[in-house]
Amino acid sequence: MAKEKKLVEAITSMEEDFAQWYTDVVKKAELIDYSSVRGCMILRPGGYSIWENIQKELDRRFKETGVENVYMPMFIPESLLQKEKDHVEGFAPEVAWVTHGGLEPLQERMCVRPTSETLFCDHYANIIQSYRDLPKVYNQWCSVVRWEKTTRPFLRSVEFLWQEGHTAHATAEEAEERTIQMLNLYADFCEEVLAIPMIRGKKTDKEKFAGAKDTYTIEALMHDGKALQSGTSHNFGDGFAHAFDIQYTDKDNKLQYVHQTSWGMTTRLIGAIIMVHGDNSGLVLPPRIAPTQVMIVPIAQHKEGVLEKAAELRERLGAFRVKVDDTDKSPGWKFSEQEMRGIPVRIEIGPKDIEENQAVIVRRDTREKLIVSLDNLAEKVGEILDTMQREMLERARIHRDAHTYQATNFEEFKEAVATKPGFVKAMWCGDQACEDKIKEETGATSRCMPFKQEEIADTCICCGKKAKSMVYWGKAY
Amino acid sequence: MAKEKKLVEAITSMEEDFAQWYTDVVKKAELIDYSSVRGCMILRPGGYSIWENIQKELDRRFKETGVENVYMPMFIPESLLQKEKDHVEGFAPEVAWVTHGGLEPLQERMCVRPTSETLFCDHYANIIQSYRDLPKVYNQWCSVVRWEKTTRPFLRSVEFLWQEGHTAHATAEEAEERTIQMLNLYADFCEEVLAIPMIRGKKTDKEKFAGAKDTYTIEALMHDGKALQSGTSHNFGDGFAHAFDIQYTDKDNKLQYVHQTSWGMTTRLIGAIIMVHGDNSGLVLPPRIAPTQVMIVPIAQHKEGVLEKAAELRERLGAFRVKVDDTDKSPGWKFSEQEMRGIPVRIEIGPKDIEENQAVIVRRDTREKLIVSLDNLAEKVGEILDTMQREMLERARIHRDAHTYQATNFEEFKEAVATKPGFVKAMWCGDQACEDKIKEETGATSRCMPFKQEEIADTCICCGKKAKSMVYWGKAY
Repeated sequence: MAKEKKLVEAITSMEEDFAQWYTDVVKKAELIDYSSVRGCMILRPGGYSIWENIQKELDRRFKETGVENVYMPMFIPESLLQKEKDHVEGFAPEVAWVTHGGLEPLQERMCVRPTSETLFCDHYANIIQSYRDLPKVYNQWCSVVRWEKTTRPFLRSVEFLWQEGHTAHATAEEAEERTIQMLNLYADFCEEVLAIPMIRGKKTDKEKFAGAKDTYTIEALMHDGKALQSGTSHNFGDGFAHAFDIQYTDKDNKLQYVHQTSWGMTTRLIGAIIMVHGDNSGLVLPPRIAPTQVMIVPIAQHKEGVLEKAAELRERLGAFRVKVDDTDKSPGWKFSEQEMRGIPVRIEIGPKDIEENQAVIVRRDTREKLIVSLDNLAEKVGEILDTMQREMLERARIHRDAHTYQATNFEEFKEAVATKPGFVKAMWCGDQACEDKIKEETGATSRCMPFKQEEIADTCICCGKKAKSMVYWGKAY
Repeated sequence: MAKEKKLVEAITSMEEDFAQWYTDVVKKAELIDYSSVRGCMILRPGGYSIWENIQKELDRRFKETGVENVYMPMFIPESLLQKEKDHVEGFAPEVAWVTHGGLEPLQERMCVRPTSETLFCDHYANIIQSYRDLPKVYNQWCSVVRWEKTTRPFLRSVEFLWQEGHTAHATAEEAEERTIQMLNLYADFCEEVLAIPMIRGKKTDKEKFAGAKDTYTIEALMHDGKALQSGTSHNFGDGFAHAFDIQYTDKDNKLQYVHQTSWGMTTRLIGAIIMVHGDNSGLVLPPRIAPTQVMIVPIAQHKEGVLEKAAELRERLGAFRVKVDDTDKSPGWKFSEQEMRGIPVRIEIGPKDIEENQAVIVRRDTREKLIVSLDNLAEKVGEILDTMQREMLERARIHRDAHTYQATNFEEFKEAVATKPGFVKAMWCGDQACEDKIKEETGATSRCMPFKQEEIADTCICCGKKAKSMVYWGKAY
């Protein structure tokens, strides 16, 4: 039993030290390993397979809206990066520079892409001539590099995986429509598949993307009450089009600039899954994203017929992603591993169960134990997975709402941020000076101006002037 | 009509200038665009969607054999690259070096991965302790960088997409088995899906991978008679295990070194598809890999009911990948585009066809035209796609066999290489001096020692000494 206990004991409890709990989970659930490369992580099969499922489902949803995938070079020549002024200012300080190819120095150094707006614009300038060439709705799946000083697995790393969509449209209206469409697609995906409720809204000018006219965001609340920006969608207007001279001939034979958008989600989502759903036994994966949905653990597997029955059950559950753990570890150890890895459902089957034509089903999130007849096992498992998916979203929503406060003056606001981890809703005048002051004095940043505005007061909590919008504020990852 | 002709006229014929024909096809079929980054190409939707289909099918086949996907960092610290002597010698001259992160110089420079053996070994040394941890059968999909001086789209570029499998096994036998298993998986995939017949065999020591004990290869013959190495699988023995100290405790509690393999295929396969199947009207895609299998072209689409009928046919053909070209281009232009892009089947449907309850089907490879009743359209399309897939492989095999020669002495060999583009089968003593001399005097390299050996003579064509094996020789991409 000593050995069996080790796996669980090795995790710090989240109440004791949330950051350490997080680090323990990513390691012990075998999602990542640290590498010899500073700030870069290795995505192990446990972590990468979650990303594969995210990719598969997002990609399907993208394509339904007409997205086409492409692949751009990973390098950006320095002169190309510099074409759009705000953009280069935002990214130049945090890129990795390639200066030598083989044994020779390069004539012009190149950065490893931190994002690919400049490459897409350069390409669009080449291939867009007429209104017939529009819209272009391209996306790429790749990795990008940002030279971060402090890194944490999934949340902030030097290299990370993501998708970046880049579109070009004939009109400003169409670009705005696409920007919002993708934001909603992201939010729906997170809610329906990852069971993470999202606040949808617009970033303040201070927080928007380098080079964007408007940035929209979806924001989630983690278990510790900190916010996580989970996806962003940017409307560039025609700023990049002017910088890169992307023009088309319209139906009246006049030259027009295109209107552009970009939007991205990253492996950060895996961090969100961990911090929204995890518990002190490890990861808890929403069934729809879990690489393995059901782990069958044979009990007394050396006894005749047990392994055969386990294999038979796997066949019967062919509609789900099922594995049998037939390694030579003890059942207790297998239970701990299945819990640590967040596999939604465990089925225990032993000689006594076989005799009674039944199995024990244990749900990962609630630990609920059910004894089920083998005759309707598949049906039951399906029900449990559906219920679990629904209830995980519901619990996350309840947690978020219970940790969403509001403040009508600066004192209330400061107290809320200092004592109650979570979102604080408060009115703002729209002035960056107030936003800066709030961040400086409380550590909370503006997360977004939600689409669903509420009039909780008339005046800005900071300066007392007339309020322009309600903002979600919070400390964030 | 002038405009319609342009698309086709713009292609150089392959008989006139094969290299130019190739370049024309990759551009006009919109597979790639050149980028502002030297030697790097942009994979446009037409090209990337072929890669997506290759990925999907290969990945499925990998996973059936127990492969798990992971993701490693894109950077390799210089000290890590240097751990295995042969490996670093092979790759150091052609890597891109990152020397600065943000505004500061790095303490140790890092290369962008040209391949990831060193990173996998470093990781394996961390995670492999016991025989219980074996085998590890990992793969990653990513891009790699090799600082090539002369580049050609798909065939040789500074950055390219690939998969790289890296495995660790308890025994030498198991490693050898996996090496051969993956080579056969590659060859089967190329033959069954890409309709490209392969020669399976072993590389000579001169041609093997930097650091490998044995390299196996699959070799294809292009339309112009040049060979293309299409996939390789390496058995490393325990060389890397010694260099990186990857040891496990066996069942008898003794420390043992692991035995490793690696294997990879790249976007080069798209070059092979073009050069094996293409013709003077453009690309010809094997139905199983074609992103669009059927293009429906409405004739006189302004007339009532035509576009509706085209949409109805698309629905009826739901089992295939079908598009309707309802743009405002002329039918002739649409035909040229469908041919240029290599879409296997075109369906023409106009007012007269609708009246007669029929459609015209045109097969891309043979240009065969069929008038088919709409009542059994789906069945007919299915038959045509199957036949086309089978016949494309058969034609490629006939072409290859017709361009495979044999030589029993050096004079015959030199004449064959000089006058008959293709493979030359000839005996070899196993001595690298002969291999070097053959290359120097004829330009032909050893492609492989095929698994299916034939005794076409007793002596080496070069030195006349006793022959050890029959080798396929040829000029290669």
